[in-house]
Amino acid sequence: GLVACNPGLRLLQGHRVVLRDDLPAIRGRVALLSGGGSGHEPAHAGWSRLGTHQGGILGFLLPVLHHSCCFYIHPAAGILLIVKNYTGDRLNFGMALERARAEGADVRMVVVGDDCAFATPGKAGRRGICGTVLIHKVLLGPFMGIWEIWGIWGGAESPKSPHLSPCSIPGSKPSFQLAEDEMELGLGIHGEAGVRRMKVLPADKAVETMLKHMTDPSNASHLSLTPGSSVVLVVNNLGGLSCLELGIVAGAAVRCLENRGIRIARALVGSFMTALEMAGVSLTLMLVDEELVRLIDAKTTAMAWPNIVTGPATTRREEVPAPAEAPRKLQDETGTGPGTARVQRVLQRVCSTLLDMQDRLNELDRGAGDGDCGHTHARAAQAIQAWMRSRPPPAAPSHLLSALADVLLEQMGGSSGVLYGLFLTAAAQSLRGRSDSPAWADAMDAGIEAMQRYGGAAPGDRTMLDSLFAAAQALHSLRSPSADPLQVLATAVQRAEAAAEATRHMEAGAGRASYIRSSRLEQPDPGAVAVAAVLGAVLEGLRDPMGTPQ
Amino acid sequence: GLVACNPGLRLLQGHRVVLRDDLPAIRGRVALLSGGGSGHEPAHAGWSRLGTHQGGILGFLLPVLHHSCCFYIHPAAGILLIVKNYTGDRLNFGMALERARAEGADVRMVVVGDDCAFATPGKAGRRGICGTVLIHKVLLGPFMGIWEIWGIWGGAESPKSPHLSPCSIPGSKPSFQLAEDEMELGLGIHGEAGVRRMKVLPADKAVETMLKHMTDPSNASHLSLTPGSSVVLVVNNLGGLSCLELGIVAGAAVRCLENRGIRIARALVGSFMTALEMAGVSLTLMLVDEELVRLIDAKTTAMAWPNIVTGPATTRREEVPAPAEAPRKLQDETGTGPGTARVQRVLQRVCSTLLDMQDRLNELDRGAGDGDCGHTHARAAQAIQAWMRSRPPPAAPSHLLSALADVLLEQMGGSSGVLYGLFLTAAAQSLRGRSDSPAWADAMDAGIEAMQRYGGAAPGDRTMLDSLFAAAQALHSLRSPSADPLQVLATAVQRAEAAAEATRHMEAGAGRASYIRSSRLEQPDPGAVAVAAVLGAVLEGLRDPMGTPQ
Repeated sequence: GLVACNPGLRLLQGHRVVLRDDLPAIRGRVALLSGGGSGHEPAHAGWSRLGTHQGGILGFLLPVLHHSCCFYIHPAAGILLIVKNYTGDRLNFGMALERARAEGADVRMVVVGDDCAFATPGKAGRRGICGTVLIHKVLLGPFMGIWEIWGIWGGAESPKSPHLSPCSIPGSKPSFQLAEDEMELGLGIHGEAGVRRMKVLPADKAVETMLKHMTDPSNASHLSLTPGSSVVLVVNNLGGLSCLELGIVAGAAVRCLENRGIRIARALVGSFMTALEMAGVSLTLMLVDEELVRLIDAKTTAMAWPNIVTGPATTRREEVPAPAEAPRKLQDETGTGPGTARVQRVLQRVCSTLLDMQDRLNELDRGAGDGDCGHTHARAAQAIQAWMRSRPPPAAPSHLLSALADVLLEQMGGSSGVLYGLFLTAAAQSLRGRSDSPAWADAMDAGIEAMQRYGGAAPGDRTMLDSLFAAAQALHSLRSPSADPLQVLATAVQRAEAAAEATRHMEAGAGRASYIRSSRLEQPDPGAVAVAAVLGAVLEGLRDPMGTPQ
Repeated sequence: GLVACNPGLRLLQGHRVVLRDDLPAIRGRVALLSGGGSGHEPAHAGWSRLGTHQGGILGFLLPVLHHSCCFYIHPAAGILLIVKNYTGDRLNFGMALERARAEGADVRMVVVGDDCAFATPGKAGRRGICGTVLIHKVLLGPFMGIWEIWGIWGGAESPKSPHLSPCSIPGSKPSFQLAEDEMELGLGIHGEAGVRRMKVLPADKAVETMLKHMTDPSNASHLSLTPGSSVVLVVNNLGGLSCLELGIVAGAAVRCLENRGIRIARALVGSFMTALEMAGVSLTLMLVDEELVRLIDAKTTAMAWPNIVTGPATTRREEVPAPAEAPRKLQDETGTGPGTARVQRVLQRVCSTLLDMQDRLNELDRGAGDGDCGHTHARAAQAIQAWMRSRPPPAAPSHLLSALADVLLEQMGGSSGVLYGLFLTAAAQSLRGRSDSPAWADAMDAGIEAMQRYGGAAPGDRTMLDSLFAAAQALHSLRSPSADPLQVLATAVQRAEAAAEATRHMEAGAGRASYIRSSRLEQPDPGAVAVAAVLGAVLEGLRDPMGTPQ
């Protein structure tokens, strides 16, 4: 898969060895060879082509190392092997080195031990983990003649997820078990158990615990970190952690380091050195100077290297100030006068109607939805009442509907809130600078059109649109100069009520009820019923003896 | 985390909105806005800064969309919203669009529906999944005035892993359950169940099934693919699949498409559109021409975009021929003569000794290791015997030890094989062009040094090194001109046997036995015993009446 998807790579015939395709170009240069067992992808073959100037990094798998693989890069002036510190890796690479030397090649080896889990490392020393990736990257600069590197790296690993899990060798059982509320610190990339098991901590606390251990002077494997130090931070997904959680850990790590006065010159976040599908994360710190940062930044054609942006990481980026809401032009002055009084009457009637029918709407909704349609509409009614208490509503139709859209979008909630918001916003546009009867017919059509465009429902789908649409058809009569607005509205209300009742026999084609196809729904759609009731309340409000028909 | 680690990004104060930091640069250009719920990381905020010429892609989360977010990019000449086709996304983005239009902005929307799971899509249409990422990338080229895009994308999703799993909303149960041997095709990125559940297939078969469904003309959502078509392939990790498995699926997809005569212009492999930690993969195909490939290749500073190499994917890359093994210079002519006869006698004695003690070594190993030490040494003995039957062994010490190293590395197996191989290879180097007594002492030291360097054990660690080291100390007497080689060797054998016996009282400091620290081991180390026995056999072989002491 790797070689198939990477034009610059080649397989070595008969071997599981990845070679870069421009081997002749390393003539006279130092070639870098890397490798290890599989299961750590993108390590190691994914780092092939990390550099263009110092020869390639070849991903070697252990079984082939015996076979004098160094031969295959014979044009190189010398060969550097990069080895993670595990006995098996050291032995196998060591064997390859001895063989190649016996054949006359100039071969050196760097053994990377960046793990700082063990406060008292055993004879085997610190394990090589994710820091090895950074070694690969920086060794591609001017060759530095390094033999062994110990102790300039820090790494600690922890499975950290709401669903923590160790890795399993394909076909085997997981290598250890964690209870749902446990995490483990300091584990290895081969399924080795960790050095400390504890209850799961929030991300900030977990990261703080890890970094504290990594930099604790009483830990023989610690990285010495003092305020003012510059580091490259790697937040490495061990294979099965979600990208969402990885980002949370990255944010926590940057914050924690910053609080200690550390400068994070670069932060690399992604999958660098994995342990199959282990749901965990490792943190790696490398102390850097400008030269090392330059090497980290250097362009590469290795596909496993991220598309990094050159700049430090910090949680203290200046935020973009949110502009104040565009001032609403409330030409409606103070919202007094007969227009405002009528609006208040109509809205009060709408609100009391919705509050009165809360239980009935919930009951209707229980058969097809989640039984909260009444609550949602009651919440809308209460929001409108509170809004009216806070200020007199504007009388100009366009401003009124816009303001109502704001209230419902912010406080009604659910898809209903957005649908009403869409309807009112589009309707308000139609009423800009107009308040004649035909404008109301146009507003109704515009509102329905917006709901249909974004919601995807059509008349006949057993939704609130059914009663809205029926009312809109009736309201088209408002376009006739001879129409009596209140009479037209009364007809529209009747049509809406009939349409709501008719939803009783419809199959749901949109909305939550559409997931219930198996049995016929026996009640009308609560959304359609609510819309018909709202229209009825508007009519009643306008007919109120105190009101003046428009 | 994202903004902390990305110097080019900013948060909008008080909102979960990501903005690029060069907003003034979009003045007079079309700005692209994208977003959706979280849990799909790196989508959507990770695509911020995907382009530099057409304004930014801002990652919007739904709750803030109501608040006229379009205001924040008011310098733009126009705004294009990129929306995945889900009702909630359409409604919320639709609301933002209507609001922004009401405020006078020129806003358009493209709804992406690239899912081809449903052979008969419902009224809601095809879902927007991973193909949305490609839309983001290519729309950053010359703005194309697209309104809605349907049907030019193909995508199908499948959890595909030895450990398949759906995603869980943090704090909730997994959204559906899969048996250990089941996989599901055509599922969604919100935990929706799939359209087809089946037994787990091998990667090649699973990919073939997915691609067949995606391109089947009887599927109304299919992508029309004919031999000669050029595509961009995205192999997308849904969040919890190991990188190893992802690479296997990628290879299978390239192979399967190639077999159908399709050209894979680019293959993108990684995490693009996830569903939290779902252990699954999605395949996306985009039909492309040169212009689209150019847009896919275009440089970007979006950190979530991979470091792609510009070139087609193919499983038919020419492999690098493996050079023939360097011809061994067998100056030892035909391997006849008294030297060869003596070597044969010694080796036969070594082999019969190891075969005789197979059960005893296994028994010793059972207390501390995995009980196969006898088997491993017997395998070595049989390999040496077979090798001697196939050709007379060289008599020159350097060539002899080199050849034995080859045999053991290839056929003995385990760490023991590599350790013997290291020892013999390094010892052979010391014997190059020499066969005097002091050379053998040097060879022994060189072999031990190589084993120690790579294996990490020291005398006293209860390993084979204990008897080897004791023998080597005795062999130093060979450097004295007056030494009797056979007498020195006899002393060395005694010391080795005593050292092997002494391991009975040592705690293991290296090797597998070092994991058993709790109880004292009561038997000598089998590796040390084997080494002493080998040296004893060499002595007996050399003392054989037919032999001539060196």
